[in-house]
Amino acid sequence: MSVYLHDIPLSQAQSRLQQALQEADLWRVLGMETIPLDENALGRVTAGPIWARISSPHYHASAMDGFAVRALSTVGAMPSAPMTLLIGPEAQYVDTGDPLPDWSNAVIPIENVESLDGNGKITQDIRTPKSIRIRAAVTPWSHVRPLGEDIVATQLVLPAGHILRAVDLGAIAAAGYQDVKVARKPKVAILPTGTELVPIGSELKAGDILEYNSLVLAAQVKAMGGEPMRYPITKDDFDLICQRVQEAALDHDLVLLNAGSSAGAEDFSVKVVEKLGTVLVHGVAVRPGHPVILGVIARRNEVLTKQSQLTTDSEIASDNERPRNDIIPIIGVPGYPVSAALTIDIFVEPIIAKWLGRRPKELPTKTATLTRKLVSPAGDDDFVRVVVGKVGEKLLVAPLARGAGVITSLVQADGLALIPSGTQGIEAGEKVQVRLYRSEAEIERTILAIGSHDLTLDLMAQHLAEHERRLVSANVGSQGGLIALRRGEAHLAGSHLLDPKTGQYNISSIRQYMPNVPVKVIALVGREQGLMVKKGNPKRIKSLRDLTSPKVQFVNRQRGAGTRVLLDYHLKSMTISPESIAGYFQEEYTHLGVAAAVASGRADCGLGIAAAAQALDLDFVPLFKERYDLVIPKRFADDTLLTPLFGLLADSVFRKAVSKLTGYDVSVMGKVILED
Amino acid sequence: MSVYLHDIPLSQAQSRLQQALQEADLWRVLGMETIPLDENALGRVTAGPIWARISSPHYHASAMDGFAVRALSTVGAMPSAPMTLLIGPEAQYVDTGDPLPDWSNAVIPIENVESLDGNGKITQDIRTPKSIRIRAAVTPWSHVRPLGEDIVATQLVLPAGHILRAVDLGAIAAAGYQDVKVARKPKVAILPTGTELVPIGSELKAGDILEYNSLVLAAQVKAMGGEPMRYPITKDDFDLICQRVQEAALDHDLVLLNAGSSAGAEDFSVKVVEKLGTVLVHGVAVRPGHPVILGVIARRNEVLTKQSQLTTDSEIASDNERPRNDIIPIIGVPGYPVSAALTIDIFVEPIIAKWLGRRPKELPTKTATLTRKLVSPAGDDDFVRVVVGKVGEKLLVAPLARGAGVITSLVQADGLALIPSGTQGIEAGEKVQVRLYRSEAEIERTILAIGSHDLTLDLMAQHLAEHERRLVSANVGSQGGLIALRRGEAHLAGSHLLDPKTGQYNISSIRQYMPNVPVKVIALVGREQGLMVKKGNPKRIKSLRDLTSPKVQFVNRQRGAGTRVLLDYHLKSMTISPESIAGYFQEEYTHLGVAAAVASGRADCGLGIAAAAQALDLDFVPLFKERYDLVIPKRFADDTLLTPLFGLLADSVFRKAVSKLTGYDVSVMGKVILED
Repeated sequence: MSVYLHDIPLSQAQSRLQQALQEADLWRVLGMETIPLDENALGRVTAGPIWARISSPHYHASAMDGFAVRALSTVGAMPSAPMTLLIGPEAQYVDTGDPLPDWSNAVIPIENVESLDGNGKITQDIRTPKSIRIRAAVTPWSHVRPLGEDIVATQLVLPAGHILRAVDLGAIAAAGYQDVKVARKPKVAILPTGTELVPIGSELKAGDILEYNSLVLAAQVKAMGGEPMRYPITKDDFDLICQRVQEAALDHDLVLLNAGSSAGAEDFSVKVVEKLGTVLVHGVAVRPGHPVILGVIARRNEVLTKQSQLTTDSEIASDNERPRNDIIPIIGVPGYPVSAALTIDIFVEPIIAKWLGRRPKELPTKTATLTRKLVSPAGDDDFVRVVVGKVGEKLLVAPLARGAGVITSLVQADGLALIPSGTQGIEAGEKVQVRLYRSEAEIERTILAIGSHDLTLDLMAQHLAEHERRLVSANVGSQGGLIALRRGEAHLAGSHLLDPKTGQYNISSIRQYMPNVPVKVIALVGREQGLMVKKGNPKRIKSLRDLTSPKVQFVNRQRGAGTRVLLDYHLKSMTISPESIAGYFQEEYTHLGVAAAVASGRADCGLGIAAAAQALDLDFVPLFKERYDLVIPKRFADDTLLTPLFGLLADSVFRKAVSKLTGYDVSVMGKVILED
Repeated sequence: MSVYLHDIPLSQAQSRLQQALQEADLWRVLGMETIPLDENALGRVTAGPIWARISSPHYHASAMDGFAVRALSTVGAMPSAPMTLLIGPEAQYVDTGDPLPDWSNAVIPIENVESLDGNGKITQDIRTPKSIRIRAAVTPWSHVRPLGEDIVATQLVLPAGHILRAVDLGAIAAAGYQDVKVARKPKVAILPTGTELVPIGSELKAGDILEYNSLVLAAQVKAMGGEPMRYPITKDDFDLICQRVQEAALDHDLVLLNAGSSAGAEDFSVKVVEKLGTVLVHGVAVRPGHPVILGVIARRNEVLTKQSQLTTDSEIASDNERPRNDIIPIIGVPGYPVSAALTIDIFVEPIIAKWLGRRPKELPTKTATLTRKLVSPAGDDDFVRVVVGKVGEKLLVAPLARGAGVITSLVQADGLALIPSGTQGIEAGEKVQVRLYRSEAEIERTILAIGSHDLTLDLMAQHLAEHERRLVSANVGSQGGLIALRRGEAHLAGSHLLDPKTGQYNISSIRQYMPNVPVKVIALVGREQGLMVKKGNPKRIKSLRDLTSPKVQFVNRQRGAGTRVLLDYHLKSMTISPESIAGYFQEEYTHLGVAAAVASGRADCGLGIAAAAQALDLDFVPLFKERYDLVIPKRFADDTLLTPLFGLLADSVFRKAVSKLTGYDVSVMGKVILED
């Protein structure tokens, strides 16, 4: 029995699928349909070049309200030698857009004439005079929109494969059409499978997995221009899955089978594809997403008859040509949400692009500096979700959580850094290629905060969004933040590092970790640190001393975190050895991470802030007060990028929002602690 | 009577409208609604921050197929000292995603164990053994996805004002929701007015104007996230327009009245707004688009009762709060299509953004070099549609047709160059700010051709699109193209400049206009030049000599065009003076332009190519044969950017397509005429 998949390189996997589609005559626009020219045509793709049927304007049109004249008749008119033109044979009033009389070849704007009555006197009936007086000649075709100024009949208005925008619809209409031929939308069936899956919104028990991949996949397909169809969850039953796949194959252009694409006990996908057709690829050397299956299956003949009954009226009306072959591609999509979403981007987008006749979407790619070392399997193309910021002239990327199950890493990602196969890892400070999800302008207004995590930063991010700024924080602990500042990799760092010798916060650490970097240090908040314990404090933990009890399982913060420094300081002063605390070496990276560990029962307690305990409905044993500062290199302190942040520190709305968090003291907010 | 509008600066106009909306409590998110979490939520805007209701995973989940164990029990296992764990008390089989048993805190992947039967022998029932043998210890929590790894209950999943993407929907579902609160779509009424307007698709007579602005406006509003409603055309009747506006005000958030926004005889918009409410602004110092009206009007009370009857079920179900005031903004949108579309971008987008709670859209802005002098009214912010290309390191913009009626200039535009008020014009070679409609990648693969126009270039553009290249041509005539090449403002120029002394094409002009620039010259096509005349040649024009007839009106190409040089050469050799030809000084910039002038009756004939005559159903009197070459500076000739273009010259499909055009000879195609 094969437990391992055989991973092949990404480009090879893509070309195997493409070749199979070519052989089945499916590597082309699938079909076209004629749709009315209205706002619903937005985003559709032209199925052929559009040639103008008529010219626009289709006659010589006046471009102004004024009088149509023969240019030749105006020659000689001057301020000193005015000329009078008779209405009728020599001049005719025209509104903007009116056709010019046959005999006329220019327009004089109404504000440049004097309207005269029958007696040659100036009249107020400026549009219906008997004659007009002019004081300047006009050149032929002045103030005229000649026939074809915009569009000449037969000219190319839009090429094939063009994604329709609002102005395009106007141009097509101007060229004489009231409908437009577009590529029909590829129909994509999405089949979630798995006995453990439950629909979103279900009450959950341990082992239930919310089925939301089909939602993400359907939305991706829709955004790409396809027509997704979500099937209900099918449990892990080989025959049932086969039946559902065959059903879906009848009326779709592509089947996405999710998940069961790996090689586990309940992973039926590869067997299903083997039974109904051919497995082209099982396993691609790409992370996340390697257990992907690419295949083609047959549409069965007896059901092809049924298919024509399923055809709706709207389809009959369209030019829609169903490919004559009986082959349909199927993709076994991995189960982890990040893998699933990336599989769609990597494998489905190029197919849908081809089927629609448009160019595949491409993200802008930049070279950026990595802020943290990354390890990667040497054989795989590794796509790492990153946040991106620009510090000085340096474009920086900070990796997000790498687990394939962490969909929030995709939500928070500003881009995707590629670590190509053949590379085992990249050191901090080295260059990587990053595909950007965000525009340069968004990145230009991004404030990159690296350091200690505090809930106030999340609130700050929300308030800054209203002031044209995006605050992105990477949590590496207080020390890590100061080191990042020294390396020029962030605009500011949140820090709460106690100096055991002086009892002061941050100053000595700043001098130690970032010597020769002039800084401004501003107090953000005062806050309580204490032990988060289960509701009711069942193990009656009251002080650090209780952590040495064999009954008590502790969870710690990572080395360099201010909370860890605080703990070590107090342990030392109480002469408690770290080794005597069970769980001292278990590390979490945020206050909420520690709280979650306690809430889940993985630990009995952890040191952290009151707000995190409250968030997860834990009890809190307050132990210490501390100050949390923002450390800002001087070179950024005066940058307009940070101006709204300083504004926020003085903003009563923001202060009020922070003071509502349990355990926070805003009285110090904005106080300048140090300015070099 | 006020003929002139009083134009105020753009920023002042925008702030007047914003202030009026603030006073009416309309400068905020209009309302919210709860919609199901499915693919139709894509693109909607979150109405508030989304906090996680549950954690994800909500239990400690195995990350692999394998055996759940206590990490402590594995201490000491080594390759040389295997350890056996009993199924039941010490190990339990788990699939990926299964919850860990309470007593367990790690998973050993199935491929790292030996499954044993009751006798301690290796068994093939790898998932249902009696015991397992391991040869390495595991650390706690390895191969486990701990509770909250992705999302911790109460954490912020998404902020307010976020435009939903596919992955966001997954994160919201993972956080425990099956629906999502979004800003309701602002309802925008679009009222086309004008007696001369006819619906798209109509048979046209002179003076009829196709009404497609409402189509473009509706599509723009939809793309911005609003809900457009297009009303039928209302003729120019003050009372009718008032009635329609009041009707529209009842059930919408914004009324767009198009056109009649200027101060002409049939321009009722300002009077309508004056009657129903207040005109805030009439005339903005922006081009195109200056005769814009900004105002607010009242919703009438007696019809407010009717409104509740109009409310649909879906609205009742929503959280939709209609603002309590009785004021609704109205915008008088200018009639010219370019003005109309830009008015929507400038004035409506910020309002819809505010009403949805999202950031206004912003186009990336770059500094670029202008290739042609631009004149601009000093008092206005002037938005000029441009094509954009990158030549070497230089970003270049070439202005497109500037008429506000030329919607194809918006279709072809790669960007919008801003000539700020206070500037009367910008010289060629100077810098301008340009807002880009296209991505950097698209611009990087753009081949910029400047010079003489030939239909083959349009065909080439279509074929190149299939080879990852975009060919953009600016038509400035053959000479203009060579000068542009010298200035480094294009990758290649199409040229057909005859040297009267040598009878050769292009070489002497290249040496004259671009000395010291090494070039490669490649023949593109041979083609016939001749006189385009009306069908049947009613004026019996047979040769250039006939152009001197007083009955014959000629239309010429601009100075520097190869066709103009050809004409002058033959006129000289026949000793015909240009002054003897009526229309010699009337210039068109393309072959099709000349053909359109003849087709419309504006001229009786013009010199040009057979294909242009055929395109507009004209007769053609062949006179000369000439060669049309591509002139390419050596520095670009070897650039990969141009590789697909050279490939095309040898491509039989492309040759065949060109040879189908009347009057073309492809036998010379690809021949190297000169290589420095």
